[in-house]
Amino acid sequence: MEVNIPNSSLPRVVIVGSGFGGIQLAKSLKGKAFEVVLIDKNNYHTFLPLLYQVATAGLEPDAIAEPVREIFNGQPHFHFRMAEVLQIDPQQNELNTTIGTLQYDYLVLACGSQANFYRNDELTRHALPMKTVRNALALRSRLLENSERALELSDKQQQLEQLNIIIAGGGPTGVELAGAIAELRDVVLTKDYPELPIKHMKIHLVEGNNRLLKSMGEDSSRKARQFLNQMGVTVHLNALVQSYDGTVITLSNGDMHAARTLFWTAGVEGVIIPGLSPASIGKGSRYVVNAFNQVAGYENVFAIGDNALQVFPDYPLGLPGLAPPSIQQGQWLAKNLVSLHQKQPLQPFRYADKGVMAVIGRNRAVVELPFWHTQGFIAWLLWMGVHLLLLVGFRNKASTVLNWVVNYFSYSRASRLITRFQNTPVESVTSVSGASVPL
Amino acid sequence: MEVNIPNSSLPRVVIVGSGFGGIQLAKSLKGKAFEVVLIDKNNYHTFLPLLYQVATAGLEPDAIAEPVREIFNGQPHFHFRMAEVLQIDPQQNELNTTIGTLQYDYLVLACGSQANFYRNDELTRHALPMKTVRNALALRSRLLENSERALELSDKQQQLEQLNIIIAGGGPTGVELAGAIAELRDVVLTKDYPELPIKHMKIHLVEGNNRLLKSMGEDSSRKARQFLNQMGVTVHLNALVQSYDGTVITLSNGDMHAARTLFWTAGVEGVIIPGLSPASIGKGSRYVVNAFNQVAGYENVFAIGDNALQVFPDYPLGLPGLAPPSIQQGQWLAKNLVSLHQKQPLQPFRYADKGVMAVIGRNRAVVELPFWHTQGFIAWLLWMGVHLLLLVGFRNKASTVLNWVVNYFSYSRASRLITRFQNTPVESVTSVSGASVPL
Repeated sequence: MEVNIPNSSLPRVVIVGSGFGGIQLAKSLKGKAFEVVLIDKNNYHTFLPLLYQVATAGLEPDAIAEPVREIFNGQPHFHFRMAEVLQIDPQQNELNTTIGTLQYDYLVLACGSQANFYRNDELTRHALPMKTVRNALALRSRLLENSERALELSDKQQQLEQLNIIIAGGGPTGVELAGAIAELRDVVLTKDYPELPIKHMKIHLVEGNNRLLKSMGEDSSRKARQFLNQMGVTVHLNALVQSYDGTVITLSNGDMHAARTLFWTAGVEGVIIPGLSPASIGKGSRYVVNAFNQVAGYENVFAIGDNALQVFPDYPLGLPGLAPPSIQQGQWLAKNLVSLHQKQPLQPFRYADKGVMAVIGRNRAVVELPFWHTQGFIAWLLWMGVHLLLLVGFRNKASTVLNWVVNYFSYSRASRLITRFQNTPVESVTSVSGASVPL
Repeated sequence: MEVNIPNSSLPRVVIVGSGFGGIQLAKSLKGKAFEVVLIDKNNYHTFLPLLYQVATAGLEPDAIAEPVREIFNGQPHFHFRMAEVLQIDPQQNELNTTIGTLQYDYLVLACGSQANFYRNDELTRHALPMKTVRNALALRSRLLENSERALELSDKQQQLEQLNIIIAGGGPTGVELAGAIAELRDVVLTKDYPELPIKHMKIHLVEGNNRLLKSMGEDSSRKARQFLNQMGVTVHLNALVQSYDGTVITLSNGDMHAARTLFWTAGVEGVIIPGLSPASIGKGSRYVVNAFNQVAGYENVFAIGDNALQVFPDYPLGLPGLAPPSIQQGQWLAKNLVSLHQKQPLQPFRYADKGVMAVIGRNRAVVELPFWHTQGFIAWLLWMGVHLLLLVGFRNKASTVLNWVVNYFSYSRASRLITRFQNTPVESVTSVSGASVPL
């Protein structure tokens, strides 16, 4: 059965994934002579940079998710379908999806990335990833449920083992999560659970490299570590997770720590859909693309964002998995698709690095702009401003701001509802799109 | 194993359920010479009168749920435990819970009500109840998912069968739900799904009585029906659901309507915990209580709210299942518990009817105050004001107001995320407390 799209004589661009790249491409194709079909298994776009705030009860899930149909209301020749893509048939220019087959003239894979447990069964079983709204809700519930469970233990040492948190991965997600959990501990848990030894609850951040935030400069790494230390986070550098049985973690440096909770931000890999030649898939499960974002071996198949491996002299391992490269590739590809269809020469993509930033907590952030690095309160203001601006277009911007302001002045957290029990299995992340699996 | 509560020499009141009654009682016991233990399977209180707004994408779930620990922060001799009560042992004055046994001196059952399918297997399988946050999210997802699925059908009649909604029960919940779904259809779905025959989507409201809102006056019933007709809801009176196989509903008057979705607000029953004498349980699965809310046959076991059957001359079938009786019983019982413990005479509960109201849509509500009935815009303003006032104490009041105001002026709905798939089984409602099962 074929997916039911109204007839049109325009060439069809099918975009898989409603993350930053897919959304931007579909927006940039507005008014161009293409029919655009966007597919995602969710009917919403997830603003991933703020996902850690959902995980730490600072924001409601809906505040960082926007219905795709809201974004594209009234855009002509645009069609959204909520479905999963199961297989690509590049010979027939056809996708096999959960709602039928779908022909394409041009295919753009913008499926994002998923947690990578490096095929370690123990980690797959015990570690909680943070890539989707559903993941974030599971983290939030675990953080709060840990305290409820600790109340039922009479031994202080056992209580602490229930409360302690280990975060694997000292990149931006791990650093932001560690800081936000430290704030949750100091601001909310101490007040909500006066009977528990919350002050002695440990937050361990484990990083394999010799510094945090290795994609940023050394000054930012140093400052981030200093901020985290001030906030009572124990940072372990040059340390990998060796084993974790759900109760005790062993690090590669021999250290052992008792904790019932391990959050995993230590690795991601691109989401691959079966059907393309194995030669098109490179390091980190990413589609190897050329400077026009064409997948190796195909003229009409493209990849953008986290599942694209595009190498530049400055980026020998590919562009970083951030929103800006995805958005810029989406914008650029729209122009190249027009050129390709008109049989005109394509323009190679150029990435404009606008800078990177990470927030550690109240008044504490690190920001690197192309010609200026700053840390602390000014950086924190910049981080707030940029993220509020980026939320423009999001329907819930106002309530996000409101929540932030209220949290800032009340030292409270609005969304501390336990909505999933600790023993509920966290579904493994097999999302086709970068967006997320259902709650 | 005993539930771990810090030692105290005070007599212990155990309250089961963090609904309106349980929360109010615990608040009213502040400063009294009791140790209070509140148990609920969720860590939050649900503001049920606004649940239909979650079901129709008007409000986010967190906006109508408040963490119990936030409500009681700093209240001395108060303990909350997140657990389910499995059994009551009235001989031993003991509860068996999922976290161990718990002794009580006084036990208050404030467990609320649950959907009643009258042991009809077909209904249990196909009808969606609306008693919990989780239910409301399932309804929201179904409403939106229906449109996504209809896109994949090529026949207009099939599309309409996928889109049509049947609501069983013309009480306040059914009426408010029908009105809100009609608004969702006219304001959101028509815009989001221009390819679908949304204008012809039918909303059927089925009521067994000869009028809607039978707990209110005839003028309100008439006006509510008129409002619903104006909004394009088909009202069926004197009609019961005879059978429903998931595709076609047959009513007791012989009418048949094709619809894939049946929402169930046609009956509730009290939540009963095993262990008390069968003689203590009356009509509608409610604990038979005297004027002091003592459960029949027990001196130190009480029931308040939806799971209490308290008969008065004006209320031969018991008080209505609304927030005000629960709250008033909670306030009153706090005083009687003090008297009982001091071996002083108890005061019989007197219910003060403050009026009832239901909202049908934008500018349309019906309100009955003790000496004044009104319908339409003024009633709608009253409804808004009262519900905003009732939300006082709710942390998310500000964002609720914000959402309402934005929705009102933009004719939009913020929260239309599909977070649960249609084929996900909706867990049957077996909540111990009136609050809700997890999301």
